[in-house]
Amino acid sequence: MDLNDDAIYERTINYYETDRMGVVHHSNYIRYLEEARCFLLDKAEMPFIEFEGNGVTIPVLEVNCKYKYHVTFADTILIKVFVKEYDGIKFTIGYDVVNKANNQPVIMAETKHCFTNRNLRPINLKKHIPEFDQKFRVLNEAYKKSVDIWFFLVYFLTLWYNPIKFKNYELYQKKKRKEWVIWN
Amino acid sequence: MDLNDDAIYERTINYYETDRMGVVHHSNYIRYLEEARCFLLDKAEMPFIEFEGNGVTIPVLEVNCKYKYHVTFADTILIKVFVKEYDGIKFTIGYDVVNKANNQPVIMAETKHCFTNRNLRPINLKKHIPEFDQKFRVLNEAYKKSVDIWFFLVYFLTLWYNPIKFKNYELYQKKKRKEWVIWN
Amino acid sequence: MDLNDDAIYERTINYYETDRMGVVHHSNYIRYLEEARCFLLDKAEMPFIEFEGNGVTIPVLEVNCKYKYHVTFADTILIKVFVKEYDGIKFTIGYDVVNKANNQPVIMAETKHCFTNRNLRPINLKKHIPEFDQKFRVLNEAYKKSVDIWFFLVYFLTLWYNPIKFKNYELYQKKKRKEWVIWN
Amino acid sequence: MDLNDDAIYERTINYYETDRMGVVHHSNYIRYLEEARCFLLDKAEMPFIEFEGNGVTIPVLEVNCKYKYHVTFADTILIKVFVKEYDGIKFTIGYDVVNKANNQPVIMAETKHCFTNRNLRPINLKKHIPEFDQKFRVLNEAYKKSVDIWFFLVYFLTLWYNPIKFKNYELYQKKKRKEWVIWN
Repeated sequence: MDLNDDAIYERTINYYETDRMGVVHHSNYIRYLEEARCFLLDKAEMPFIEFEGNGVTIPVLEVNCKYKYHVTFADTILIKVFVKEYDGIKFTIGYDVVNKANNQPVIMAETKHCFTNRNLRPINLKKHIPEFDQKFRVLNEAYKKSVDIWFFLVYFLTLWYNPIKFKNYELYQKKKRKEWVIWN
Repeated sequence: MDLNDDAIYERTINYYETDRMGVVHHSNYIRYLEEARCFLLDKAEMPFIEFEGNGVTIPVLEVNCKYKYHVTFADTILIKVFVKEYDGIKFTIGYDVVNKANNQPVIMAETKHCFTNRNLRPINLKKHIPEFDQKFRVLNEAYKKSVDIWFFLVYFLTLWYNPIKFKNYELYQKKKRKEWVIWN
Repeated sequence: MDLNDDAIYERTINYYETDRMGVVHHSNYIRYLEEARCFLLDKAEMPFIEFEGNGVTIPVLEVNCKYKYHVTFADTILIKVFVKEYDGIKFTIGYDVVNKANNQPVIMAETKHCFTNRNLRPINLKKHIPEFDQKFRVLNEAYKKSVDIWFFLVYFLTLWYNPIKFKNYELYQKKKRKEWVIWN
Repeated sequence: MDLNDDAIYERTINYYETDRMGVVHHSNYIRYLEEARCFLLDKAEMPFIEFEGNGVTIPVLEVNCKYKYHVTFADTILIKVFVKEYDGIKFTIGYDVVNKANNQPVIMAETKHCFTNRNLRPINLKKHIPEFDQKFRVLNEAYKKSVDIWFFLVYFLTLWYNPIKFKNYELYQKKKRKEWVIWN
């Protein structure tokens, strides 16, 4: 796998993840994000289980999640997952979730994390597992390169200017999605 | 608390426990049973956390659950929980779950367990925590005393003779429920 | 797909499905069973969502589950799912769950169901969706053919004679698993 | 109940809500927030189920959650829940979650919502259920009054100046908690 490729995680919704509103309960998306995170680490050949084996845990410090459109049982979502920020001590993972069937945005989210030892004291990954530190840096660089002026323009419109919001976001997504390389 | 009293656990259903059928997802009842089990241990002054503190875990060996009527968000259920079988090594917990509003049976269930040490080897509770072994025996005796000929008659009809099934069960429940002593 | 082939559903365990004992919480297996059930219906080209589209829901009447060995985060399980009993009104689904890595039995389970209309009145599938009724009958026949005298012998030993229990079951599983045809 | 009193929701952690790290899985806190939200609506005598009865649903638009300290099985948390923003169309609920045993902050969170009709079109609560609109305004006013200069000072320190962060926050919480009036 090339760490510069997009990491796209595919997931089909289970019946038990819906609620009486008929759609996925909002708390379950937070779980899909975790799955996507583990998927990213797996594909970068630094599986979460090896962090644990080295005595490193990765607690969640913060979750921020914007809900756009619903999905429900039997729908399939695609989660694009990327390393937004990384400095060896803390990092931020970003998630762009779309409905596979129609490319509609489902959620936009980010989670913040740090690395701790077994006593839950924060540690510097560079000192503990330098090899993984290096991979994180490559993933973060790949993300930074992918962010261009168009992205910011669209993101700005998405966040602030309601009427054309989804329209633009979807057009942008559709353009970008053609370039998504699914990892297998 | 008198270990001979009925142990009734009260629980109100949360929104996130329903599914798109509009009712509680069947897997969540298994979780309510665990809550009721912990409640029983708490009230008998042998909280689960003290088992853990003594290096004893209580894995689940078997779950058997019959679903009768649905409940949904904002409903309240009453779980009568009792020690059906106990021999120091294995035990069976029984559960009678009814809708508080109308006394309808919701589920009838039992779970089987054993005691293990930290290496997950089965152990005899009598040798490890004799005090708790004694309490389990009292709880089991209390259950046995409560089972009378009427219970078996009704239970038999409940299981085998469909048309009058719920009718009888409910009448029986209504009669018995007047005698339930809620622990607080 | 040939309805006579074995239906094997593959599932990798997520972090959020473990509990503080370090292994999958027992209630989550009930959810995996549902996933396997939907997988079976999908593969037989009668997806659950089409039942719903025809106004038919499939409530769970009963769950019986025996827990054998634990699995945990990042493990992969294989769920063999089959139609044990079917008469048009009620049916029983059986599940044989093994750890993919070592073929150890994880759980053995069955769930019982009926068909209902939108008012939750029981219905006969043959009258409502005869095409699906036919498929259920084929799946049930395929299961019956697969059950031979060796199966019963092994099953009997599995249930009753403890010392050689897992040994035999595993040998049997290993023999049979070579013949499993994974659906894709 | 006086809508100007603090709304404090008490919740004990269940075993099945922990993960293999030994503590509550981060996605479950999002569920506790929903429970607290329903509690607030209940106590203000506008239960969620009445919104549904009037054809109004309350989807979640956004969740933002900062994790401070862990809690685990058998711990009890207190969730202070309040209406941070309200304008008839959208609203923001804030949550301050502390460990009951030692008053430590567990999470600080907010969720954003709107009101929709059965077709998921946004609506103005004032036009649909003016009585509930009025209650929301009272709750929002009560929150605004409770926010004083000390709150901002402490909140600022909590967010930005790490070393004295928790110290100050806890002192502040301890001072304030004495004034909490538990609803029953």
